[in-house]
Amino acid sequence: MNVLERITKLQSIMKDENIDAYIVPSADYHQSEYVGEHFKARQFITGFTGSYGIAVITKNEAALWTDGRYLIRAKIELKDSNVKLFEMGTSSILTVEEYLESLIPDGGTLAFDGRVISINEGKNFNEKLSKKNIKIQYSLDLIDRIWENRPSLSKESAFLLDEKYSGESTNSKLKRLREFMREKGTNKHIIASLDDSCWLLNLRGKDVEFSPLALCYVIVTMDCVQLYIDNDKISDDINEKFKEDNIQIKPYNDIYEDVKKFSKDDVILLDPERINYALYNNIPGESLKVEADNPCVLWKAIKNDIEIENIKNAHIKDGIACTKFMYWLKNNIGKIEITEISASDKLEEFRKEQDGFLWPSFEPICAYKEHAAMMHYSSTKETNCSLHKEHLFLADTGGNYYEGSTDITRTFVLGPISDELKTHFTAVVRAMINLSKAKFLYGCKGYNLDVLARGPIWDLNLDYKCGTGHGVGYLLNIHEAPSGFRWYIVPSKHETHTLEAGMIITDEPGIYIENSHGIRIENEFVIRKGEENVFGKFMYMETITFAPIDLDGINKDEMNKDEKEFLNNYHKMVYNTIAPHLTGDEQNWLKIYTREI
Amino acid sequence: MNVLERITKLQSIMKDENIDAYIVPSADYHQSEYVGEHFKARQFITGFTGSYGIAVITKNEAALWTDGRYLIRAKIELKDSNVKLFEMGTSSILTVEEYLESLIPDGGTLAFDGRVISINEGKNFNEKLSKKNIKIQYSLDLIDRIWENRPSLSKESAFLLDEKYSGESTNSKLKRLREFMREKGTNKHIIASLDDSCWLLNLRGKDVEFSPLALCYVIVTMDCVQLYIDNDKISDDINEKFKEDNIQIKPYNDIYEDVKKFSKDDVILLDPERINYALYNNIPGESLKVEADNPCVLWKAIKNDIEIENIKNAHIKDGIACTKFMYWLKNNIGKIEITEISASDKLEEFRKEQDGFLWPSFEPICAYKEHAAMMHYSSTKETNCSLHKEHLFLADTGGNYYEGSTDITRTFVLGPISDELKTHFTAVVRAMINLSKAKFLYGCKGYNLDVLARGPIWDLNLDYKCGTGHGVGYLLNIHEAPSGFRWYIVPSKHETHTLEAGMIITDEPGIYIENSHGIRIENEFVIRKGEENVFGKFMYMETITFAPIDLDGINKDEMNKDEKEFLNNYHKMVYNTIAPHLTGDEQNWLKIYTREI
Repeated sequence: MNVLERITKLQSIMKDENIDAYIVPSADYHQSEYVGEHFKARQFITGFTGSYGIAVITKNEAALWTDGRYLIRAKIELKDSNVKLFEMGTSSILTVEEYLESLIPDGGTLAFDGRVISINEGKNFNEKLSKKNIKIQYSLDLIDRIWENRPSLSKESAFLLDEKYSGESTNSKLKRLREFMREKGTNKHIIASLDDSCWLLNLRGKDVEFSPLALCYVIVTMDCVQLYIDNDKISDDINEKFKEDNIQIKPYNDIYEDVKKFSKDDVILLDPERINYALYNNIPGESLKVEADNPCVLWKAIKNDIEIENIKNAHIKDGIACTKFMYWLKNNIGKIEITEISASDKLEEFRKEQDGFLWPSFEPICAYKEHAAMMHYSSTKETNCSLHKEHLFLADTGGNYYEGSTDITRTFVLGPISDELKTHFTAVVRAMINLSKAKFLYGCKGYNLDVLARGPIWDLNLDYKCGTGHGVGYLLNIHEAPSGFRWYIVPSKHETHTLEAGMIITDEPGIYIENSHGIRIENEFVIRKGEENVFGKFMYMETITFAPIDLDGINKDEMNKDEKEFLNNYHKMVYNTIAPHLTGDEQNWLKIYTREI
Repeated sequence: MNVLERITKLQSIMKDENIDAYIVPSADYHQSEYVGEHFKARQFITGFTGSYGIAVITKNEAALWTDGRYLIRAKIELKDSNVKLFEMGTSSILTVEEYLESLIPDGGTLAFDGRVISINEGKNFNEKLSKKNIKIQYSLDLIDRIWENRPSLSKESAFLLDEKYSGESTNSKLKRLREFMREKGTNKHIIASLDDSCWLLNLRGKDVEFSPLALCYVIVTMDCVQLYIDNDKISDDINEKFKEDNIQIKPYNDIYEDVKKFSKDDVILLDPERINYALYNNIPGESLKVEADNPCVLWKAIKNDIEIENIKNAHIKDGIACTKFMYWLKNNIGKIEITEISASDKLEEFRKEQDGFLWPSFEPICAYKEHAAMMHYSSTKETNCSLHKEHLFLADTGGNYYEGSTDITRTFVLGPISDELKTHFTAVVRAMINLSKAKFLYGCKGYNLDVLARGPIWDLNLDYKCGTGHGVGYLLNIHEAPSGFRWYIVPSKHETHTLEAGMIITDEPGIYIENSHGIRIENEFVIRKGEENVFGKFMYMETITFAPIDLDGINKDEMNKDEKEFLNNYHKMVYNTIAPHLTGDEQNWLKIYTREI
């Protein structure tokens, strides 16, 4: 069955069920950004493989919303499908709600699987469409009816993260959480977001592609924890450990029935962005609901000292792999056959040589020439191509290590490049540097500092249609709330929290010219406390990514003195950190590629 | 009667009236920032002369809140008064509401003159204090009872601004406004903010210190305008002109009775930040109130092409005066007696030589050495001092011309200065330049770009405790909403609107070291449209201030290439614009002071 046939089949079921529009988002039951195979319903119905998007099927048409990172990819993947494409978050373009409002008749019906829609999304649809008296049916998983051989839910085992990695015991985290619950006057806390549950219980799994998460729900009360999870995932050892903290295992789906039994004495803390609409609607009206940000979101974003030390070690390992890869690539290009996919595999090989490496932390983006203009390109059998001794090759990859997750982008110069490419490359490096070297007052949010990275690129009348950086989880999600860098505020992105000491965030500006080239340079840094004086608390960033930035792409005359100084110091640090782990040949080469300019 | 005696007297009246706390803000009946003599009640009761602050008198104490610009000045002026000083807008410091809540007993009474409190402020007090059952008495002007010889309301005449200056007729502005009222489903619009009323009617006056405003209220209906104003201010000529637009004159205070007559058919558009609490409470409950930003706020901030051309001319005149002043100062320092006040007078003299100059656009800040550490210092007989051939002299001054208002700051080097002062001076110049040379995407707000100015100063672990810039009115208020530059959001400042083409904003970073020195450099620019392409609409700033920046303060080794390039281009433009209006000696001198570095 191709996409066209799937949509037709869905529309015929919609007709039988008297449904005017059906929404299929990218989420699982936990509002995850990346999801397991079982949950790729939006991909199934539209053919679009990107991680972010919402599909809407109406009686006579189908449409998809995604953001700037995925536009070019979506354009290609939707080519033969008749699915209309819309860019999300651009004020001039129709929103999902406006589209629904225009196509559903007065008194019509909108349907979706309420488990894959958040409380806020559900409420929002309700509010926007109530003007037209549109009814919402939130318990229909219609995709399930047409998806033959749908992958079953993951059966992978879970594992515990030792305190030498997590830096804080479950007991200590629960204590903090119960204190918070008390302050809010609540006695129950439902957590459905996988990374928050896993962080709280120091639990990890293999149920979501790339992200080491276990599928589960958690209800925390003042004296125990109910963990809703497939019992097969939990070994006796884990169960033994859980008993110490009074954590009880219950079947994964039982939570939907259990919350129905909540009484009027229950005061329930829940995060309307991180709990699904179906679960929410199962809670009896007589139970008091207190809606607030789940405090774990902020707590896990502020890494403790042990986590930071671990993550730095993970980055050194990652830097060794990336440097070895760069040496290999630079020395073999034009000599042996290299493709996007074989290069990607080679880089993974180098990572696998490192102690404690688990698996990639996200889908590798290895893109040659114009492919790199697609910010989130993924090479497939169909698009894979050979690399030649010319132009640019972009690799945005990362690893999950027991010591944390990494996310790094380097763009490599494979041969002579034009002056324009050099100017673009240099601007991207300057952009990355200008944000990384910022000193700022405590209280700043990402939107205050984003211009430091955009500036050198805006000066060329260019921009990149995405954020400049995102928080990074510790063996959780690679994109982690609540901080990041983007000049405009997108509430659903949850990235406007004050920049707190201990947060780890990426800095990854880029230039993307459709059908021509794409350049991105990405480091990670940890936010640090600086001097405190009469003017306030100063903060700065400590870079924790260690890999050379290809000097072959840089026109040093276009860099300011302080930018050059930053780059030279950075390269000196890279050499000192990475060289001890290299062969003699690699060392000699690295000396040249980290030279002062 | 000194301040102590005044407060004691007020407290004794409060006792008689059974009032626990009495609030005295800095406003007039129109929520103006700068007010006429009659309205300086807060100054009367505390002795603090700054333009911004709120006084609270309770049974046993008195307190004043002001912001960072005025802290040092307030400290000095409150020294012998027993009035406690609090900094506004600093999260760790008690707010006015918290102070009131802590000192007024359960069921107690808070009082104020509801004409000097905005709707939002009044509602806010009501909400915050209702928990303690505190009653609000909003019709008591207790200051009036103790202020002997209180200056009467201004009797100055009003005048009309010709269309060759305003660039748009009253008729055209009313048309736009009525269209807006229709869209909002309203049929009456009350305007109490003086600058909005004056802008709408192309009317000006002399009722507020420095700001050329006429004391009035306006009610716009779909077919006429009621202008509440002292009839003596309106000449027959104005009246004749007003008849064309069906503008009817009514006595100033009649509005309080007239709004009581509103009926259930009246749907009233009003801006809760710009109408006083007493007026609001006089409107019958049966009239529907639609609260929204007064659209004139944005419209008048976006200057039309004629206004911009006029303002540029005003700035050329102002630049001639400032350049002549700098020449005079640099050549006479150490030779003749010069004081802060005589220097200020001299600068005003140069302005008076210019065609169309009316009067200063705000209270001149002319501060030598450590006096300049007070951002809003005003030299008095007591503080006036002589200038010597050393250290720095800061002059933040401006003029009202028929062609618009100006606001410029230059800091002059009067003799040899230390390396530290040079570093600070250079950082301030770099800060000013970095914001002025920004190219940015349409949609940015001031808080996105503020870091460009703060960056060079934050890099020194320093900061300035105020915004980086503010909108500038056209012969209205020198501080004009709704845009400005400040990284954190202060809702009451109304400065976070998207930066729109045609807005005129100042760029005035500084460094202020208490008891040592203060440096500020201020230019104005107009926001302009740049290239529009697939990435969006690019915007840039066109500088419209023309006066040399003292090169004697600059260490060029601390400036980047592009900063030097901006400064050199700027100085070339200053020379070309100003030199034709100077004497030969002045020209030769200017050539040197605008040389390339």
